Amino acid sequence: MAYIQLNNQLPGITGLLENRKDTGAPIRELTQILLRGESTLTEMERELIATIVSYRNQCRFCTNAHSATVIALGGDADLLDKIYHDPENAPVSEKMKALLAIAAKVQELGKSVKEEHISRAKKAGATDLEIHDTVLIAALFCLYNRYVDGLGTYCPEDPAYYQKLASRLATMGYGSPKDPGVRIGEESFK
Amino acid sequence: MAYIQLNNQLPGITGLLENRKDTGAPIRELTQILLRGESTLTEMERELIATIVSYRNQCRFCTNAHSATVIALGGDADLLDKIYHDPENAPVSEKMKALLAIAAKVQELGKSVKEEHISRAKKAGATDLEIHDTVLIAALFCLYNRYVDGLGTYCPEDPAYYQKLASRLATMGYGSPKDPGVRIGEESFK
Repeated sequence: MAYIQLNNQLPGITGLLENRKDTGAPIRELTQILLRGESTLTEMERELIATIVSYRNQCRFCTNAHSATVIALGGDADLLDKIYHDPENAPVSEKMKALLAIAAKVQELGKSVKEEHISRAKKAGATDLEIHDTVLIAALFCLYNRYVDGLGTYCPEDPAYYQKLASRLATMGYGSPKDPGVRIGEESFK
Repeated sequence: MAYIQLNNQLPGITGLLENRKDTGAPIRELTQILLRGESTLTEMERELIATIVSYRNQCRFCTNAHSATVIALGGDADLLDKIYHDPENAPVSEKMKALLAIAAKVQELGKSVKEEHISRAKKAGATDLEIHDTVLIAALFCLYNRYVDGLGTYCPEDPAYYQKLASRLATMGYGSPKDPGVRIGEESFK
């Protein structure tokens, strides 16, 4: 049960984006550009940024959704475990380790990002655009996580829900879906 | 000097929105809807939410910009001082005090917002939409503040810069401006 009355029974962010479509549309558009648009970062790399920020913001819905999307894009449980608990030893490139470190600093506070974090990423081969997008994706998930939890939205427990949602996000992206969202089987929920 | 090379010399968020216009457009659109769209919260009340969150995120550019906008909309120094240091005694309605308390919780973390904060706002007469918009405005400024500071953008010291920017935001809102931004007099800056 969300803290406010929604016009639908969808969980997490999906219910919020449908509830106020005028604000939902630019949020979807920004996410689609950043996570699925043209980029020298892979979709998996961008989902890892979403995942590490959501985990550190303790947002269960977003962490479940984006970790399931990492799996849907070919990741595995070991990768996720490292992203959560030991990103410096995650099986990713040195460039990605440096970008994940920037994302983790953005999660804390913008001013936590220092010159040294940026130079590490540049030395590891990150472009200015990759650094820009890392900061903006991390900042966007600081918005998402607060929106979802600040309104106390419903967070399904069933892993099958997130697998179904992730399959949609991996194949269709973040645009406005024709049907309004992924439901948990046929059941409705409060 | 921002941490990355921008295609312009504009400070703070203005340089970032011009630098990558495809991501800038939905951010501007979302802000225009939330801060200047139809609402039972006044523009001043919505700017106070932006200000309290930016102040608590220690984002100097955004705090300066939105506090100057509060002044441009008729606020004064005492109101701002209370918003920063003692919001429970700010010269605003009980409903606004409850909404500012929610915004302050959103700034910490989404899950810091509890039922008790929401019921206080509802008892003071806040509608579900006002609560929704308070949470989303606060979450949006958690994005902005991290974007601006996470990329180490230039923060002007001259109060006249923020007065000019605030005058534009108070009268023209957050849509894409015809000229790309407010400059500091005629000088260029790094």
